[in-house]
Amino acid sequence: MPLHHFTPTHYYNTHSSHQPVLHIQPGDSVITTTVDAMGQDERGEKVTVGPNPQTGPFFVEGAEPGDTLVVHLDRLTPNRPVGWSNQMLAPNVVDPWYVPRLPWEVDRQDAEWRVDVAAETASLVEPLGKLGNFTLPIRPMVGCFGVAPYGNQAISTMTSGQHGGNMDYRGFVAGVTAYFPVFVPGALFSLGDGHALQGDGEMSGSGIEISFEAQFTVELRKGKRSSWPRGENADYIFTCGNARPLDQAVQHATTEMMLWLQDDYGLNAREANLVVGYCVEYDLGNMFDPAYTMVCKIPKRFLP
Amino acid sequence: MPLHHFTPTHYYNTHSSHQPVLHIQPGDSVITTTVDAMGQDERGEKVTVGPNPQTGPFFVEGAEPGDTLVVHLDRLTPNRPVGWSNQMLAPNVVDPWYVPRLPWEVDRQDAEWRVDVAAETASLVEPLGKLGNFTLPIRPMVGCFGVAPYGNQAISTMTSGQHGGNMDYRGFVAGVTAYFPVFVPGALFSLGDGHALQGDGEMSGSGIEISFEAQFTVELRKGKRSSWPRGENADYIFTCGNARPLDQAVQHATTEMMLWLQDDYGLNAREANLVVGYCVEYDLGNMFDPAYTMVCKIPKRFLP
Amino acid sequence: MPLHHFTPTHYYNTHSSHQPVLHIQPGDSVITTTVDAMGQDERGEKVTVGPNPQTGPFFVEGAEPGDTLVVHLDRLTPNRPVGWSNQMLAPNVVDPWYVPRLPWEVDRQDAEWRVDVAAETASLVEPLGKLGNFTLPIRPMVGCFGVAPYGNQAISTMTSGQHGGNMDYRGFVAGVTAYFPVFVPGALFSLGDGHALQGDGEMSGSGIEISFEAQFTVELRKGKRSSWPRGENADYIFTCGNARPLDQAVQHATTEMMLWLQDDYGLNAREANLVVGYCVEYDLGNMFDPAYTMVCKIPKRFLP
Amino acid sequence: MPLHHFTPTHYYNTHSSHQPVLHIQPGDSVITTTVDAMGQDERGEKVTVGPNPQTGPFFVEGAEPGDTLVVHLDRLTPNRPVGWSNQMLAPNVVDPWYVPRLPWEVDRQDAEWRVDVAAETASLVEPLGKLGNFTLPIRPMVGCFGVAPYGNQAISTMTSGQHGGNMDYRGFVAGVTAYFPVFVPGALFSLGDGHALQGDGEMSGSGIEISFEAQFTVELRKGKRSSWPRGENADYIFTCGNARPLDQAVQHATTEMMLWLQDDYGLNAREANLVVGYCVEYDLGNMFDPAYTMVCKIPKRFLP
Repeated sequence: MPLHHFTPTHYYNTHSSHQPVLHIQPGDSVITTTVDAMGQDERGEKVTVGPNPQTGPFFVEGAEPGDTLVVHLDRLTPNRPVGWSNQMLAPNVVDPWYVPRLPWEVDRQDAEWRVDVAAETASLVEPLGKLGNFTLPIRPMVGCFGVAPYGNQAISTMTSGQHGGNMDYRGFVAGVTAYFPVFVPGALFSLGDGHALQGDGEMSGSGIEISFEAQFTVELRKGKRSSWPRGENADYIFTCGNARPLDQAVQHATTEMMLWLQDDYGLNAREANLVVGYCVEYDLGNMFDPAYTMVCKIPKRFLP
Repeated sequence: MPLHHFTPTHYYNTHSSHQPVLHIQPGDSVITTTVDAMGQDERGEKVTVGPNPQTGPFFVEGAEPGDTLVVHLDRLTPNRPVGWSNQMLAPNVVDPWYVPRLPWEVDRQDAEWRVDVAAETASLVEPLGKLGNFTLPIRPMVGCFGVAPYGNQAISTMTSGQHGGNMDYRGFVAGVTAYFPVFVPGALFSLGDGHALQGDGEMSGSGIEISFEAQFTVELRKGKRSSWPRGENADYIFTCGNARPLDQAVQHATTEMMLWLQDDYGLNAREANLVVGYCVEYDLGNMFDPAYTMVCKIPKRFLP
Repeated sequence: MPLHHFTPTHYYNTHSSHQPVLHIQPGDSVITTTVDAMGQDERGEKVTVGPNPQTGPFFVEGAEPGDTLVVHLDRLTPNRPVGWSNQMLAPNVVDPWYVPRLPWEVDRQDAEWRVDVAAETASLVEPLGKLGNFTLPIRPMVGCFGVAPYGNQAISTMTSGQHGGNMDYRGFVAGVTAYFPVFVPGALFSLGDGHALQGDGEMSGSGIEISFEAQFTVELRKGKRSSWPRGENADYIFTCGNARPLDQAVQHATTEMMLWLQDDYGLNAREANLVVGYCVEYDLGNMFDPAYTMVCKIPKRFLP
Repeated sequence: MPLHHFTPTHYYNTHSSHQPVLHIQPGDSVITTTVDAMGQDERGEKVTVGPNPQTGPFFVEGAEPGDTLVVHLDRLTPNRPVGWSNQMLAPNVVDPWYVPRLPWEVDRQDAEWRVDVAAETASLVEPLGKLGNFTLPIRPMVGCFGVAPYGNQAISTMTSGQHGGNMDYRGFVAGVTAYFPVFVPGALFSLGDGHALQGDGEMSGSGIEISFEAQFTVELRKGKRSSWPRGENADYIFTCGNARPLDQAVQHATTEMMLWLQDDYGLNAREANLVVGYCVEYDLGNMFDPAYTMVCKIPKRFLP
């Protein structure tokens, strides 16, 4: 299958029907780069504006509304040695009475992290009190990716929806296959906002933000309709719901899973209810965006 | 340390300042039994009414408001061979438009599961279509436990709060230590609602409901104030927030974790923000109760 | 019909099956007094503890679970010349980022108001900047009232539920008829938490809090089941939903109205949907409690 | 001041930086027409597609980001004799268990209403059971209007945000002045989705939908920053918050009101807290959209 090398020259801050940067075929792979959430590239130079600039969009030949786009995340590699993060939790993730006790003095002040891809670690550049050069294992993931939305919308990359977007789900690592509903001809896939690592929920409003070299491969499921982003890894199939409150995100993700189990795994309603009822697991994606993300997972070993 | 064998003769459906069934000392262990969510005992006989009848309350000598009660879940063993579960997801966990598509014909009809403690499995007694005698690994957990609440309240065991209650968190398995705020003298700990296994969220309103033989050990952290249930296992410390919507449950759990990290681990505000921001994980407890549950977890290996 | 004069000697801070203070018959009226939210009586003396001490409970002869208790609020008169209020909005009613900008310096400091029942006004005792002796029209209302809840619960008067409780709906003024589901024999009605006036939502966590002389008359609707508090005034019938988030409070109130229209006004489902769809109005009750309150109203002139 | 007569020839279904249809000056008035929510004009002919096609956008000379656009709603007149509405409540506004009891058989079937502008009434064309030719007073209002959003977004007219949009607030009648934050040069104001009348919340997903002849006048408040739509009528100033859940919509609206009172009415924080705390009223706008709307109102007579 063809492998495209694509070097971006401009970026978008919305998911929309922008002019495609490259036309590719189902089965094709693309190696490209992404800048960080604020538009800094592999040299640490700010080459565009935030939030979450997207590389793309890529036009997938043959993709039509009503299809599902398949995106294999083949490789996600931080391509510079330093990332940054926020230091203060977002005020919306703690009790309202606790908000004044957050460390507002560092609200606008980033922390720098040395990212060592070979060692698979990130460490604070400046030691911080008891944490010292706090060192954490990296787990590179893509924070914001998706397709053009329905209804001629242009949706900011600071939020998420049925088209994907800024879901900040730490499960979107290399090796995962993501699925997106196709709303416009060509699907218009784009990606950005790489994180060397992230906590659940992106509770401080950032992961360890860094630029990536990324490789992905696209396929099409012609005539397979879906309504929300889906994914699959070695152990799970999963669906993403993006909304507020989290309750509604759970409702979207769970309903999408119910449809998936019934449409593709041949379960009837009673069987699907039982599988979800007793096998389901949930993960928290972004809880910082205008729209929050909840992920509904079913272990593959329990599927017929 | 003394080991008490306690055989319950009556049960309560509220967490409240009921007459204690036994006085125990910090350090004491208790072996007792619990009936299932509908009041059926180890013979499958209905000996009391639901919801979630509690064994206890146990008066812990020396426990005073402002202390924290420590409960080691030493052993949780299903003590009969058959459990039951609901078959239909709760209408509040799917999109409103999807509600009529739930299998309402089995809304009030239980599924029976054969629970094999030795094999560590549960299997549908009556085979169901493509699932056959659907067999899942058991993971016995306590659905509803806690202490007497503040303010002379009697809170139904169908819901949860700062006192614990019906959190239905699948992480409350044997080997875990739970912590509860003490609101009344003696703490008045009780437990019930055992599940052989459960999906995240208890999305159908039940796990595989079964009676237990249980052993637990209590301790006291004198003068250690807490506001929400906490827990600890080999890998994590965690806090539980009980509220609706899930967003608020996250806020409670996250705030409680921030306080824990600062009070007991000696982190200052900046350090605690960084640890939570980049190491936190969340689990979904009950999403069926009047109050939902979210659990905030920090891996112990990242704590100083 | 008999008119009882009842002078309270003790008060309760929960809605529960407390020992009744008086047995009354349907059709009876009671003249009594209530203390303010913190337990201060008509002399301004603290005679009991908060929150929201209740006068009662009154046992209504013949009331059985499944009935509806009718309470006519005949008269609600502040019986002392000074009320108090909080000065700072509750942190949960503003955007999280705005919380630090609230006037925390007066968080725990009450404002005093001179309440002139004859003039029907309340005025700040201490002039405050541009507002001077800020003067507002009073509209005396009962903040917290209701019956004993189901399931042997004792629910704090700081919150609300199907039994009523701390709804803080400014529509509960003299002249209004309130309806409560009966959950226990005798219904066990109680009332307290009088406000000389209040803004929608009780956004600062208080109205102008004051003691009352109150008169009410009870009746029974035997065999008329209801699930949530209802009310009626000259122009509207209304239902109260108590829950979080407000969305769910709306769902409860709207569903209760749908049932009322179909059960008592003889509308079928299509007709009831049309009436609610095009005639409904909503008011905001308490947005400070653990449970929030939304009120669903239908103008009587549009009912057949 | 100039009065423009503008006849639309095409419509937009997003708020975005579309090519303006007319350039106007602050102080100018425009008389134009709007089609109904599904694109039907004054002859009842479908001339464009839904949802909520917008007339405009109008470029207001001199409007720059950071200004506030002032829009006087001079006149809103239904210009055809028949409107339509949904018949079934939206599933999200009732309790989940009640959803199957909604009249799904009329889910996709409109009701027709005869709208008599002179008599100021709307009546069901086909009599319905006990309601007969149900007749209600009309109160023409604009459901969806606003400006181009920030960040190069194109936001569907089926939802709402800081730019306004589909707020469906029944308070936006003739005589009201609306204020919008300006995010792009020229502001790019547009309007549509006229309702002859509507219940609070637009609980069935529609008002009585009809085409309008409308007149409005624009002004600019240069350098006056605002964040959410605001409004003013004879008795109240008000602010609109658009989000889910309603709790967050309240937070946005209340915070915007706090800023308004402090920026333009010269109140300090304590004074503004007291005014909102004891004078505020809330109305429910749309509870059907992706984003819900709550309106925070302060009576002008209580402002200094």
